[in-house]
Parts: sequence; C-alpha cells; structure tokens
Amino acid sequence: MFLTKKLSSSISKAILSTAKRTNTLRRPLSDDKPTINTSQDFIHLQEKNSQHDFPHVWLRDNCQCEKCFHVESKSRIINWKYFDVNTKPSDVQLTKDNIEIKWDDGHLSTFNLKWLHERSFNKSDRKNYTENVYKLKKKQWSKNQFDSIFKKFKYDCLINENEELKRWLESLSIYGVALVTDVPSSSDSCRRLASRVEFIKRTHYGEEFEVKAKPGTTNVAYLASNLQLHTDLPYYEYKPGTNLLHCITQSNSSGGENLLCDGLHVADQIRRNKPANYQMLTDVQVEWEDYGEEDGNKFHSMYRSPVICLDKNGDVARINYSTPQRGSHLDVSVDGVKPWYESLKIFTDLIHEESAHYKMSEGEMLCFDNRRLLHGRTEYSDTDQNVRRVIGAYVDWDFINSRLRVLNNK
Amino acid sequence: MFLTKKLSSSISKAILSTAKRTNTLRRPLSDDKPTINTSQDFIHLQEKNSQHDFPHVWLRDNCQCEKCFHVESKSRIINWKYFDVNTKPSDVQLTKDNIEIKWDDGHLSTFNLKWLHERSFNKSDRKNYTENVYKLKKKQWSKNQFDSIFKKFKYDCLINENEELKRWLESLSIYGVALVTDVPSSSDSCRRLASRVEFIKRTHYGEEFEVKAKPGTTNVAYLASNLQLHTDLPYYEYKPGTNLLHCITQSNSSGGENLLCDGLHVADQIRRNKPANYQMLTDVQVEWEDYGEEDGNKFHSMYRSPVICLDKNGDVARINYSTPQRGSHLDVSVDGVKPWYESLKIFTDLIHEESAHYKMSEGEMLCFDNRRLLHGRTEYSDTDQNVRRVIGAYVDWDFINSRLRVLNNK
Repeated sequence: MFLTKKLSSSISKAILSTAKRTNTLRRPLSDDKPTINTSQDFIHLQEKNSQHDFPHVWLRDNCQCEKCFHVESKSRIINWKYFDVNTKPSDVQLTKDNIEIKWDDGHLSTFNLKWLHERSFNKSDRKNYTENVYKLKKKQWSKNQFDSIFKKFKYDCLINENEELKRWLESLSIYGVALVTDVPSSSDSCRRLASRVEFIKRTHYGEEFEVKAKPGTTNVAYLASNLQLHTDLPYYEYKPGTNLLHCITQSNSSGGENLLCDGLHVADQIRRNKPANYQMLTDVQVEWEDYGEEDGNKFHSMYRSPVICLDKNGDVARINYSTPQRGSHLDVSVDGVKPWYESLKIFTDLIHEESAHYKMSEGEMLCFDNRRLLHGRTEYSDTDQNVRRVIGAYVDWDFINSRLRVLNNK
Repeated sequence: MFLTKKLSSSISKAILSTAKRTNTLRRPLSDDKPTINTSQDFIHLQEKNSQHDFPHVWLRDNCQCEKCFHVESKSRIINWKYFDVNTKPSDVQLTKDNIEIKWDDGHLSTFNLKWLHERSFNKSDRKNYTENVYKLKKKQWSKNQFDSIFKKFKYDCLINENEELKRWLESLSIYGVALVTDVPSSSDSCRRLASRVEFIKRTHYGEEFEVKAKPGTTNVAYLASNLQLHTDLPYYEYKPGTNLLHCITQSNSSGGENLLCDGLHVADQIRRNKPANYQMLTDVQVEWEDYGEEDGNKFHSMYRSPVICLDKNGDVARINYSTPQRGSHLDVSVDGVKPWYESLKIFTDLIHEESAHYKMSEGEMLCFDNRRLLHGRTEYSDTDQNVRRVIGAYVDWDFINSRLRVLNNK
C-alpha cells in the first residue's frame, strides 16, 4: 500500500531535456488556450489572464495516483522516509483537463486542472481559500453596531434545517455572537443543539453547568452580584471555544442583563491608538488560575497567556480577561509591572465603553465566541418565587469549523 | 461583595510623604533583620542576602482582605472598572510576619512575608516557580537514552496510590513517555486510568478508539501496514495532549513494534545545526487536514500550524507531523515551497534516526505526550486466530497539570 521505492535524485540532464521539451509543449498564447512550460523547479501554467506556478516537489508530494494517495481516507500514503525532494519531471503533457507528468524515476502523475487551480500559490487565490474554506473571516463590531450584527435563529430550525444551522454557525464565526429563540424549557436544550454541531466540551465544571446564585460557591459566577466582564476559563490552554447560555428562568428584578463586548474591536482600537500599550498586552504573559472543587474533585488550573494573543499572522487569536481568575504571580521583570497594569486599565476602560447590554428572556439562548468576546452580567436579586436560572455549555471551534465545512460541501 | 469605591488618583504629596517615612521604617542591616523602604512605585524588602521589590500597583491589585479577595473561590473581587493604577501607600509597617500598608484612600492591606516571597519578581525566584509549580521542565532525550528514561508503573498502584500517580504524571511531563504494566485486559482500562487524572478527551473518533486492521477504513491508522512516524490529530487546534495505548492483543508476527521519537530533541538538533531550516519549520504554516465519517457523522477538520510550534519564550510548544494528514494546500509564496520541503526532509530523516523501538506486550499501556513525541508502528500481519488489538484514549494537559498541582499540594 505504501510507496517504498527510493526515487532517484535529480539529474541535470533531465532538467536540460525538460527545458528543451518546453518549447514543443508551449502553445501559442493567441488562441487563448492554456499553455505550460517547465523551469528548474516549477511547472508554469499560463492562461489567458493568469499564470500559476507549481513547484515540482509539491506536485510529486501531492501525486493523486493510488500508490501515493489512499482514496477512502483521502490521505497521502507516500512513504516520506524515501521521498526525494529533488525529483524532476522527464516529460510533461497538457491535455484538455489535466497536466500529465512522467517523473525521472518513471512514476506517472495526473493532475486535474480544476484541482490545481484550487491549490494555486498565487497570493489572491490563497487569500480567497483561506477566508472562505479554511476559516471565515471575522468582522469586528463596536457597541453601536451590536443591534445590526446580532442575528436571531429559531431553535427548531437549527435542529431540523441544515441551511439554518449553517447560517447560525456563520454568524458565530463572523461576528462571534448570535441569539437562539423559542428554545424548549428543558435542561438538555444546549446538549441537543451542541450535538447538531458535534458535542459539548467537558471541563472541570462538567458538560452542562447551571448558573444560579449558590451559597458557599467556589466560583464567583455563582453569585448574584454583578459579574464583571470576562472570558470564561482563561486558565485552560484549551479554553472553551463558544458559550451557549440558555435562559430557563430570568430574574424579574432589575439587572440580570448580559454585557457583551467584541474583544477584536477593542484590541484593534488599542493597536491603532496606543501601540505601546498594545505591545504590553500582547507580550506580557499573565497567569490565569482557578482553584476549585466540583463533586468532591479538586482541581488547580493554570495557564500563562497574554490578555491579547496574536497568531503567526499578527491577527488576534484569543482574548483572556477575568479579574477573579487573574493569578497573583506575574512572570515579568519588576520594572515592567506598572506599564502592564496601565495597559490593562486602558483595556478595562475600553471594554466597559464598548459593551452592549442584552437581557435574555426565558426561552432564549445567547451564543458567543469565548475566545473573542467578553461577557458579564449586571447584579440582580432573586426571590424565593423567582430564581434566575441559566444552563450553559461549551462547544469548541475545531468542531464548529468542521461542521461548517461539511455543511458547505453538501 | 465588590469593592466599588473609586480610589483616588495618585498625588505627588503622598509620594513625598511616603519617601520621608521610609527613613523611619528602615531598620539597620547589621542585626540581619529584614527592613523595608518605599520609593516612587515600589516597596523594597531588604533581607540579609536578597532584596525583593514589589510594585505598589501589584500590591493593591493583590490585596488579600475580604473586600478584595473572596476566600472560598480564591478569587480577586476588586471591581477593576474603578481600580486606580496610580494608588500609593500612605503608611507602611513591617512586623515579624507581615507588611501592613495603609493606602492613600484609607484602605488597609496586610501581606504575609512568606506569601510575598512566593511571588518575588526576582528572576531566579520566578524561574524556580515556573519550572516547579507552573509546569515541570521538560528534558529531551535521544534514541540512545530511551532505555534510561522509559519508566514503568504498575496499573494497580496508579489506581490506588496518589504518590505513584504523581510519579507517573511527572514522567509523562518531563520525558513525554511512560509505560504502564499489569493492565487488566478490559476495554475500560484506559478510561479508569484517565479518570484518575480527570477524564478522556473526546474527538471525532469517540472517547476510546480501537486500533486494529479494518477493511474500508477512512483512517490509515486502521491498516496493518507500517504506520509512519506521526503525531495524532495535528488537524485540531486543540490536539489531544497525551495518548494512552492499551495493548489487549499483540500480533505474534514480526512487526507491530511501536516507534517513539522525542520531537523536542529533534527540533533542538535542527535549531543548533541547521538554523535556516529550523526557521522554515517554525515559520511555514502547514495545513493539517482530515476528512472522515464515524458512526454516520461526517467531519472535515483542518488546522494550520508549523511543524515545530514555538511558544512566546521560543521554546517548542508542539510538534505537528503526519504525512497522511498533511493537506495539499500550502499557504506560502511559491518560492518558499522547495526550501520548506528540504527542511521537512531534514526533519523526516532525523526522526527516523532518533526513533526508539518498543513492542508492547499484552497488558501493557504505552503513554506519551502527543504534542511532543512522534510515534509509529512497523508493519505486522494478523491471522484469524491472532488479531492485534489496541484500545486508545487521550487525556489533555490542562487536566494532567491540574492533577499534578493538586497531588503536590497534598
């Protein structure tokens, strides 16, 4: 099943002979048909309005023949222990739909032109694929834009209709927030919806968790007092990707409103207006921490990470913010402490300025991106007859993104 | 419960008056007793052989009084919306065990000296805390060192003895590999052991998964042919932290051996000897990908990440390598393709050179760090009477590190 032949290393003669053949392969541009030619390391596909260059080594690595690619598992089965990165074509042919390559060791590969186009190395093609297939491009929003981006979806439609499920997940991906309405007043409504994506992420607090005022709690979320803006579980390296908060009973008292702030937007404001503070917030690693006990099981979670985490492209990948769960250890030289606190204060002021308010009604489920949004809750007061009760659950982005790709391919 | 008073902003007079008081607080060094003094932004604790500086803002933020700190949840409950980063002490006293501070708004804080020492900003103290409390420092190993670092633990002892459980998790943390012996031949042995840590990580492949030759599989791991060195599920952002592989039935045929290679060691070799290739392997984001279907549920996982992922300190945080699950899209300019492949080949050659072999016996469970180690398996051949059967499960580092901290505090 595995290709175990050692491919011969490249030979300059082959390159020369390929270069010669290039002339016979090239078709005149005037008839608007594509042409190909071959250089030292590339095959160049020339079309009417564009050129696509494909490296020899990439083509050989991605040969789609059955010796190199296992169709059922859609997996490369070339044994890379014996792969030759200097392999060269000895013959290249362009047909109507394919490029056919004979390699210097005699191996044959056929590449469909459409398949190649989808994998073009041109910058605009790569960007298009990145933002539409790999992951949807996020759009930031300010407090004033909240009403226009806050989309509503009926629970039943999400359970029964794939198109509606897709639109809900797209809203969550692009804006980081969406509301589900007409949710059955059952404690497994989060679970049923999560199972439409994949499954609930389990944490130290279980799968579903109940948010209501609890005496003697080991978590400040279970107090009726105001819950400051925060992200959930910043002390996990694998912090929950999205929150589903299903309101079973809302408080009749004033308060109990949710606050929602787009951390992407706040980060972008600080990046533009306070670059030195942005630097501190993206550089200094904070120790997020949680001690607790759930069902008799003790835990002590810790994770070091900046408030604003950037990915390799410099885009915001994750926001961490939780005053109760910010540990007292700070791994920074003592002179860096005050400048960091000043930066944290700028961040804190801005998330309060940029927070939208929304009070869930019974039968609504607030869904948001926990790696991006900050959320909080204003103080409320329960009575014996009216105990605010919310059921929460988490779903991770690995599964949301997978579900979106599957739905898009239907 | 929350501190809602707005603290007054700093006043230069307060600084001056604090500076004056410093002289009265300072005790002579000659009697070896600690002394304190205060400067613009710091309290300085002078001891016989060391000095510890604590920023005012950090002290105020970490006040341990009941208005600022909720003991049951071990959480800061200062309302940061109103926090003043320029707050100053108006009076500081050193007692036998504590530093007592009166702040310029009248608030009082008491800090235990032992508590402060544990949070010292001195570089060596921070390093000590980082490597012993935050996370254990990893030690890399070469193929030749494998026998000496490969520790064995009896299953029953892990289930019943906390000290042994701790030693097993320490081995996994430090060396990334450990063997469990005398494992009951039951399909829930992984689950029982995982529950001693916390719980199994669920993936698209379920919680436990069975590795045996399966016809028509959508995953190459379920073939009897050789399984090339790889890390599991590189196409998850939250890729499983550790693998537990419990051998229920081993193949009597030759082969079926596991290969194990320390990715940390290989990365370090390339960093030292081939810095340009190291740069490519840590920079270029590869698209890891898996299409599949499990129990009728389709998935399409993707995650972009370099082969060698570095953390903010430049240390290796994660290794991604899996030829079957390396996607055909490569988001890099076309000129960067061949140099990257050359670097991948160097990595590939080195992981083969640096792989130790170990053939599990029935009743053994091989445990390893999936973010660090590469593993593979040599080809084997089943007979009708002898079908190799391994049950696997994953446990994430968030939970292993938490369990280790709890065990260390007992």
